[in-house]
Amino acid sequence: MRQFINSKETLVTEALDGALRMAGGRLARLDGYPHIKVAIRTDWDKSKVALVSGGGSGHEPAHAGFVGRGMLTAAVCGDVFASPSVDAVLAGILAVTGKPGCLLIVKNYTGDRLNFGLAAERARAFGLKVRMVIVDDDIALPELPQARGVAGTLFVHKIAGALAEQGEDLEKVTAAAKRVIEGVVSIGMSLDTCTVPGSPKESRIEAGKAELGLGIHGEAGIEQVEYTNARDAMSMVVDRLAPTIKPGPHVALLNNLGGTTPLEMSVLCEELVRSRIGDQIRWMVGPAPLMTSLDMQGFSVSLLPVGRDDEAALSSPVAPWAWPGCLPVSSVQTFPLPDGLAPVRPLPSDHPGHRDFIARCCELLIAAESDLNALDARSGDGDTGSTLSTAARALTGALDNLPLADLTQLYRAVGLELSQTMGGSSGVLLAIFFAAAGDASANGMDMVGALRAGLERVQQVGGAQPGDRTMVDALLPAIEALPSGVAAAAEAARKGADNTATITKAKAGRATYIASDKLAGHNDPGAEAVARLFEGIAR
Amino acid sequence: MRQFINSKETLVTEALDGALRMAGGRLARLDGYPHIKVAIRTDWDKSKVALVSGGGSGHEPAHAGFVGRGMLTAAVCGDVFASPSVDAVLAGILAVTGKPGCLLIVKNYTGDRLNFGLAAERARAFGLKVRMVIVDDDIALPELPQARGVAGTLFVHKIAGALAEQGEDLEKVTAAAKRVIEGVVSIGMSLDTCTVPGSPKESRIEAGKAELGLGIHGEAGIEQVEYTNARDAMSMVVDRLAPTIKPGPHVALLNNLGGTTPLEMSVLCEELVRSRIGDQIRWMVGPAPLMTSLDMQGFSVSLLPVGRDDEAALSSPVAPWAWPGCLPVSSVQTFPLPDGLAPVRPLPSDHPGHRDFIARCCELLIAAESDLNALDARSGDGDTGSTLSTAARALTGALDNLPLADLTQLYRAVGLELSQTMGGSSGVLLAIFFAAAGDASANGMDMVGALRAGLERVQQVGGAQPGDRTMVDALLPAIEALPSGVAAAAEAARKGADNTATITKAKAGRATYIASDKLAGHNDPGAEAVARLFEGIAR
Repeated sequence: MRQFINSKETLVTEALDGALRMAGGRLARLDGYPHIKVAIRTDWDKSKVALVSGGGSGHEPAHAGFVGRGMLTAAVCGDVFASPSVDAVLAGILAVTGKPGCLLIVKNYTGDRLNFGLAAERARAFGLKVRMVIVDDDIALPELPQARGVAGTLFVHKIAGALAEQGEDLEKVTAAAKRVIEGVVSIGMSLDTCTVPGSPKESRIEAGKAELGLGIHGEAGIEQVEYTNARDAMSMVVDRLAPTIKPGPHVALLNNLGGTTPLEMSVLCEELVRSRIGDQIRWMVGPAPLMTSLDMQGFSVSLLPVGRDDEAALSSPVAPWAWPGCLPVSSVQTFPLPDGLAPVRPLPSDHPGHRDFIARCCELLIAAESDLNALDARSGDGDTGSTLSTAARALTGALDNLPLADLTQLYRAVGLELSQTMGGSSGVLLAIFFAAAGDASANGMDMVGALRAGLERVQQVGGAQPGDRTMVDALLPAIEALPSGVAAAAEAARKGADNTATITKAKAGRATYIASDKLAGHNDPGAEAVARLFEGIAR
Repeated sequence: MRQFINSKETLVTEALDGALRMAGGRLARLDGYPHIKVAIRTDWDKSKVALVSGGGSGHEPAHAGFVGRGMLTAAVCGDVFASPSVDAVLAGILAVTGKPGCLLIVKNYTGDRLNFGLAAERARAFGLKVRMVIVDDDIALPELPQARGVAGTLFVHKIAGALAEQGEDLEKVTAAAKRVIEGVVSIGMSLDTCTVPGSPKESRIEAGKAELGLGIHGEAGIEQVEYTNARDAMSMVVDRLAPTIKPGPHVALLNNLGGTTPLEMSVLCEELVRSRIGDQIRWMVGPAPLMTSLDMQGFSVSLLPVGRDDEAALSSPVAPWAWPGCLPVSSVQTFPLPDGLAPVRPLPSDHPGHRDFIARCCELLIAAESDLNALDARSGDGDTGSTLSTAARALTGALDNLPLADLTQLYRAVGLELSQTMGGSSGVLLAIFFAAAGDASANGMDMVGALRAGLERVQQVGGAQPGDRTMVDALLPAIEALPSGVAAAAEAARKGADNTATITKAKAGRATYIASDKLAGHNDPGAEAVARLFEGIAR
């Protein structure tokens, strides 16, 4: 079994109970398990026309997910892909139907027609007013006199639901349902079949193929077509729909058949709007899973012509979360990019002391290149030395363009330079270090304070704590010792760097993936670089 | 390619545009395609604290689906499973941050930390107040110091979002976010890996196995476990979570990792509530796809301890449809089954005329058994004769229990008897026929009117029109001719039945699936049965 179920037999009752628990008290069920599986609104007083739908399970959220204010009054659930019994439907009708009567919304499958039909007769024998409409929106098989009912059924639930909620009588609600059924057309496409619980998955659709015009019970599509991409797929679907609709505004319902990702559904949505019937689509329901076929990786498009009354009925709020709303299709709104993405380069200025200091640091790092690479080969990919020396060479070359005389600007400029020449995580971390130091300096901090602020931010972003075997292990003690002079800082950095050779369990950075016996006895290359830098400056 | 996309390169921009179009004008994006993919609320005036999140795509609806009133202000989207660039994050921050400042909500991945971190520094250099929190809710690897950020991130969006919407300041919003991060724990389980667009699917998990503690980027779980059923699966997940939570009420977030069906998710939900920590789960978010991993067939559970303030923040309404609400977990409410499911058997009564008539009809059908079976073998499974004669024998045996003296009750009782002994579609259709006739009779119709009403209903439910090669082709003309006498009715029925031999394209019933050359020259068995019945009565 490759599904999160307990058994095929208990699947629907367990799932229905799970759904009821999570409905926040809005839903109850009839006490008729296992045969009678009927979900009912708890806020129902029989004072309005009741809407009852249902059918086989496996199409969730249809239909129990649409029970609630503004949509269905009750949903009668069969087992997976199996019609509920006459008794189950009758129980549903009897439980919710008051004087105003009840409309049964039935998808056009023989089992559903018969079981709902006989239940309706039995209910009528109790003196109840019961009407039944049959949804047959699937246009896949134009010659079949009894077209299947698929996702277009949701339009019936929504529009009839809105009217019933408003208190319209059974005649009017039934007439609206019939008008919707008359107008709605649907067709589906899939790249894969669905997995029926308890049965092995059928591999009917080869890679590179899609099925067009398929049903929601794993029935084969009317044809297998070549599948190239989302645009062509939607175009084939639109080619089937276009001849069946009249001019004028329509609402589209873009249904996820189950296993299609939201990314794919959004791409399909974009393609539908851009298609040759896109201009006619003024409102959209979804993309969302509405009438699924278990885990089928497919979609369906349903179209309904929309008059002024329908617009209100489609957009009125409802209680069931599964209904994603019906929203006007809009163009893609864009805002201009904000200013400031291209960093303003500060005016270059000179300061011999700062220039010499930076140049000296760069020389030290360049000199350490091969030693640092060798150390890094123990714990990483052996390029710490090269990465640092490349950046140092670039920084040396940029000295004439730096605002050397303004320490705040200088920190920021160095950070920017390093982020652009160094690449990878270390470039970003050093850029953060210098940017934060610049911020602190702008707020009046002295050099030690600024360096501390930089390190603090690097630790927050990088997540490295002292003892994690990173450059923090040398840099933190060095900065702490700096008020006592550069020599003290160099000594502290060296001690910290050498100590990393005893840390055999890295907790941040790439060395976390290295076995501890490979790390023992070797300094962390980042910490070593810091130590060499301070030692060199101190000399 | 087995996905509804156009190309890997254009996937995220096309999908984002599709999502924006369907947001009913609530969302816009920055004009920075293809590199800068930032979704922004259109109703934003920078007067409150902005919340910016994001990261790699492939986790939809996270994060663009949660942009809107009460949740995120902007979402910065990278390519699938790839962190967005520093520039993209910076653009998002600059576009939405006003005087009250901005909180960055970042999942704990190196790329996200670095890119959001550096963008924050750059934004601060513009004088903006920017804070950053890092979500690390995954408990899969208890020893890893940098736990991943997964679906628990949604709690941060919701609670920080509610406070920001209320107008709380950056300190307070950040503090709330940190408190949520401190408290939230998550773990995931999957039966299958995800399909990364443009790459072949990795088959890492064998049938019968599940991965526990997996990430949301297709990373392998911490271990492969035996998979038996939903209950044991949830129990393993709960075993990991239980030791990490304190006593007291919690909210659970049950996340669909992408490819799990709603049925499965509801079963898992039920199992979570029934589990050993079920008593502590007072509220639930979902089950719903919230932080997916493309099409992964898996789920994750996140738990957060809930105080009084959080309850309000969690349940406040928000604009994004993708947020399913946070509802109190309730017990399963049941309503008693309605009365009337077990049909009340009417009191038997006698009426020699009716008794003889029914007995005679039954004899006629029994006599026709083998002829009707032979005809049915041409177009169906050869059992029309047996089905009818079995029912006729049962009806004959039930004569003493029928309310023979009351025609209205008699119709209904015959219908009930047939529906219980005949089975299949024909049993239900005849039950509907007699039930509707009984209804009409109760309303004062004479026999012809009652039969007409019965036939009408059968046609509605069964969908058969005259000429569709069904029993309607004999029954309808017979009933129409009945006012002129039984002989006329018999003649009309025979004519109608014989005419079905010329109908080679069945439009209802099972014969629709039979090639026309097999049907030509043979009467429809149902129509033939009707003709024989009327002919026999007329004799």
